[in-house]
Amino acid sequence: MDQVKIIEIKKSVYESNDREADKLRAELKAKGVFLLNLMSSPGSGKTTTLKRTIALLKDEFRIGVMEADIDSDVDAKAIQETGVTAIQLHTGGMCHLDAGMTRQGLDELIDGKIDLAILENVGNLVCPAEFDTGATKNAMILSVPEGHDKPLKYPLMFTICDLVLINKIDVCEYFDFDIEECKKNILMRNPKATIIPISAKTGEGVELFADWLRAEVKKAKEA
Amino acid sequence: MDQVKIIEIKKSVYESNDREADKLRAELKAKGVFLLNLMSSPGSGKTTTLKRTIALLKDEFRIGVMEADIDSDVDAKAIQETGVTAIQLHTGGMCHLDAGMTRQGLDELIDGKIDLAILENVGNLVCPAEFDTGATKNAMILSVPEGHDKPLKYPLMFTICDLVLINKIDVCEYFDFDIEECKKNILMRNPKATIIPISAKTGEGVELFADWLRAEVKKAKEA
Repeated sequence: MDQVKIIEIKKSVYESNDREADKLRAELKAKGVFLLNLMSSPGSGKTTTLKRTIALLKDEFRIGVMEADIDSDVDAKAIQETGVTAIQLHTGGMCHLDAGMTRQGLDELIDGKIDLAILENVGNLVCPAEFDTGATKNAMILSVPEGHDKPLKYPLMFTICDLVLINKIDVCEYFDFDIEECKKNILMRNPKATIIPISAKTGEGVELFADWLRAEVKKAKEA
Repeated sequence: MDQVKIIEIKKSVYESNDREADKLRAELKAKGVFLLNLMSSPGSGKTTTLKRTIALLKDEFRIGVMEADIDSDVDAKAIQETGVTAIQLHTGGMCHLDAGMTRQGLDELIDGKIDLAILENVGNLVCPAEFDTGATKNAMILSVPEGHDKPLKYPLMFTICDLVLINKIDVCEYFDFDIEECKKNILMRNPKATIIPISAKTGEGVELFADWLRAEVKKAKEA
């Protein structure tokens, strides 16, 4: 097993992150690369979900994953074990990634050899929502133990996400979690959001997330 | 039931947050007020834990709670129903509170009539750890579904907390959560941390948290 490549991300120097994000998105489009920005709270199951999903897609696409973490490389190692390219981005305590920081990772990752790039953002429902990474689409994971009221309490995160995965549905019965109420709360924040309930542990629903990614990668290739 | 008081918190203008935090801490000490800064991820059970704990302590102390939230007042309403004073601090999307923002809330809350003040900080394991609120002590909740590896991934938060509550221990068997491994990881970050496993749902262990608070409030009165 190769060592995981670790990149110490530097603070961006761009005056306008929005402009930089739009530029990055246009470049990705020109290259036919689909970049997903995946966000969530700590411990909602981002890495486990990715491992399950990669197992379904790795024979179809060239996949690369960027793992943002404050100072460990546990997640990048776990992803690399699935056989795809993974790099670790060390944020030095920063609470989010912006477009300039995302580009530093992508420059290492892509080099024309990737169809599907995934950024596992810092575990935080607040700051990552405020900074456009330049990703083609934004997705987030809300896990059952966090509660169905979270779209009410972290409005911006749910507003900017194209896709919301509701994870850990295998433990629904042990928590006061109302999945219909949760969907209602998500759609109140973003009526266009796609919502997919999954269990990364049992695999339930993960095929639907893989289908969504297949369609998006296809769109990126055709664009 | 009275309406919950909502305060729109303004960005602090102080040059040095650390200096402002030390000043606030000294003022609280002079007044004999114990202020706890309670942090966690979204959905780890801060409000439920506080409700349980307040029920045990409200006849002994004058308690006031500040609820930091981006734009709802759900938590302050829930706390107010326990019969203690609660105010809602609207952070306007900010990901943490600093000492100046905490003071804006305290000025409304205390006025010499509180023994125990609790700040329920924004649900975020990254940014709140970076800003000293001026609280007498820092505490955090890590919940079982988040995983026992979180001290490895969010080092600063665990380093600065005097007390770590491990919540949702009633669902331990449904998650791959090793409580001894978790304690080891916490103590690696902060060898002096007090660790109390609890279930805010069943009440298990909450009495120990109440005992810890009793001792701290007593120390604040005697200082």
